[in-house]
This record gives sequence, structure tokens and C-alpha cells, in this order.
Amino acid sequence: MTVHTDYLFFNTRQRQEFVRITDDVAEIVKASGVKEGMALVSAMHITAGVYVNDWEDGLIHDFQAWLEKLAPADLPYKHHQTGEDNADAHLKRTILGHQVMLPITAAKLDLGPWEQVFYAEFDGQRKKRVIVKVIGE
Amino acid sequence: MTVHTDYLFFNTRQRQEFVRITDDVAEIVKASGVKEGMALVSAMHITAGVYVNDWEDGLIHDFQAWLEKLAPADLPYKHHQTGEDNADAHLKRTILGHQVMLPITAAKLDLGPWEQVFYAEFDGQRKKRVIVKVIGE
Amino acid sequence: MTVHTDYLFFNTRQRQEFVRITDDVAEIVKASGVKEGMALVSAMHITAGVYVNDWEDGLIHDFQAWLEKLAPADLPYKHHQTGEDNADAHLKRTILGHQVMLPITAAKLDLGPWEQVFYAEFDGQRKKRVIVKVIGE
Repeated sequence: MTVHTDYLFFNTRQRQEFVRITDDVAEIVKASGVKEGMALVSAMHITAGVYVNDWEDGLIHDFQAWLEKLAPADLPYKHHQTGEDNADAHLKRTILGHQVMLPITAAKLDLGPWEQVFYAEFDGQRKKRVIVKVIGE
Repeated sequence: MTVHTDYLFFNTRQRQEFVRITDDVAEIVKASGVKEGMALVSAMHITAGVYVNDWEDGLIHDFQAWLEKLAPADLPYKHHQTGEDNADAHLKRTILGHQVMLPITAAKLDLGPWEQVFYAEFDGQRKKRVIVKVIGE
Repeated sequence: MTVHTDYLFFNTRQRQEFVRITDDVAEIVKASGVKEGMALVSAMHITAGVYVNDWEDGLIHDFQAWLEKLAPADLPYKHHQTGEDNADAHLKRTILGHQVMLPITAAKLDLGPWEQVFYAEFDGQRKKRVIVKVIGE
């Protein structure tokens, strides 16, 4: 049994930015040597998410507009009484999800034809981490 | 350590359809021989979800009406400029979630009394896949 | 390879209540003896969730107000025709998520600086369970 751990680092230029990380995760899986198993990909900061969906700019825009509608930035959140201004980032990442588990079959990520893994930053412009933990044999 | 992989296939008659798959997953777990571990159940298409909730027709209707309210089908999504017409399906599956991890204890799915596993199709009428990956011993 | 299973029990005083469980999960991980692996933390009842986010009272209030807006309690849900009155609890827990997978590195939960694990009860005042399943070595 192998358990292999690595981390991805982000420091986005914009406050909100979605970054495709499928290839980065695939490289970590390769380095792990695991042929059959799973890879956990999980944001370690609570204003960022990790999700699987389409790599299409229009849809990424739709996702961002939709999240802004469901969890607007400019509401009088109680969290902001602490001096923070990012309550909406906590909510947005909750809808998207903050982690995924990717199956590994025959030494590769076993993804459907359109499945791509994304890091979704909602409060960026500073250093953030994602853990990738591979388990299997 | 055992890692066992199987796939479930769907081709729903309607564009949107929720299908109970608890028993199908339980059979795969049985075939795996795993007594203690977990089963990942994950949609391989990005317009379908997998979720755990109640097997009650009224609530399933409530879920569908609620998802239509939160992610309506008839908005001018940018994704549709590519010729697609299913942006809402990508959003709906995101709220429900696209994968679950089911615990296995004493060779059985270790589920609460009302937990049932569902495949949620939002853009069906064509062949789709769900991966079931069992890990344990 | 080790697979270790335990359960957390809840019987909240209020119908809706969020309970921090990070330390409880950490204790189970310690008892498991697993040094490298993962812990699944999953609600076994379908009107409760498990999520990772900030341990800040204002934000917890924001989460609850936001969920009430997205999935209000007082709508004429079809599920209520069965005699139930908790359809909104099923929906609310779906947005938050009902399970998380926590990485374990060097015998400890490998969490970011602000990551805290919560049990989110939406239909409490009775006995409920969460499974914690640790896998690794």
C-alpha cells in the first residue's frame, strides 16, 4: 500500500480566479507510482474550492456569474464585523465544493471525456495551498 | 489491500431523471470482497450528479423544482454560444454533488436508515457512466 | 493497511445547530494509529451535513441565514404531504455537503490554518450519527 502526499501552491493575480489543475494532479499521481487507487484533492483554505467540470471559458463565466447571484459579495454579512470582507468567498466555495476524490485506474486518472479538475480561488492575491493525497497500490 | 473497479451505465429516457443505485453499488461492493473500506461512486460526465438522500417521490420532485429555481434552464448562458444548451445541467449537478464516498463495514455499505444513493441525470437520453471504485481489505 | 471505524453521536437541543467536531475526529484518528491516510466523516442521516469552514460565530450565522434564503423552511413542499415537515433540511444539507475526507499526514489531520470540521444539524432534537472511517497505514 502506498500513501503519497504533495501540495499545489497558488497565488492568483486576481481576487477571483479559476485555475485548471488536471495535469498537475496527474503528475503527482505519476510520481506516486500508484496504479490502482484514488487521489484526494482538497483546498486547505476556506475561501477556495476544488471542483470537476468543463474546461470552456463561457461556462466558467457562467459559473462565476451564477455564484455571484447565489452568494453576492456586497451583503451586510455578520462575518464582516470581525474586519473580514470575504464572507461571500466562504459561501461560494461551499456551493462548488472544496475537495474531490479522483479515481486512478491503470496508473492514470480515470476521468470521463470532459472531466477537468479546477482550483477555484475566491479570495486570492496571496499564497494558498491544495493538498493532493494519493492512496492505493 | 484490494482496489476493485466497476462502472454503471445509464441511458435515461428523459432528459432529467433521478435513478436509485444503492443496490447496484452494494452488488459491486459484494463482488469486490472488501470487508472494511470505502466505495467511491462518481459521475464521469459533467452534467450528472451522484448524491445521497431520501427515496421518496415527493422529495425527489422537491429537489428537482428547487434545482430549477436555483439554476434555471432558460437563461442566456455564455456556454450556449458554443452551440450547447445544457449550462443549467452543469450548475444543477454542482449543487447536488457529483460523487460520494460510501463506508463499508463488515462487508456491507454502512449507511444510515434512510440513506439511499442516487444518480441524477440532467442531460440524458444518451449513454453515460458512473465509476465505482472500492478500496479496502 | 488499517481501516478503523467509529461513530459520533448527536442529540442537539435546538432543531438547527452547528457543532464543531474537529477535535472529536482528531481523537478517532489518533486511536486508529494511522500515520498516513485519510478519514471519511459522513452524516448517516439525510437532514444533517458535515462541512469544513471557519470557526467564527458571525460566519456561522451568515451560513444559516444564507441557507434559509436558498432553501426556505415554509414552502409547500411535496415531501410534506407524507406528514414530514423537514424538506428544507434535506435541501440545506445538500448545499453544505454531507461528508468530507480529511487527509492524515504524520499521524495528524493535515488541515490548513483555518479549516475546522462541523456537524450541521437541520432537524435535531433526536439521536443522530456520523461515521468516521479512517483508512491508511
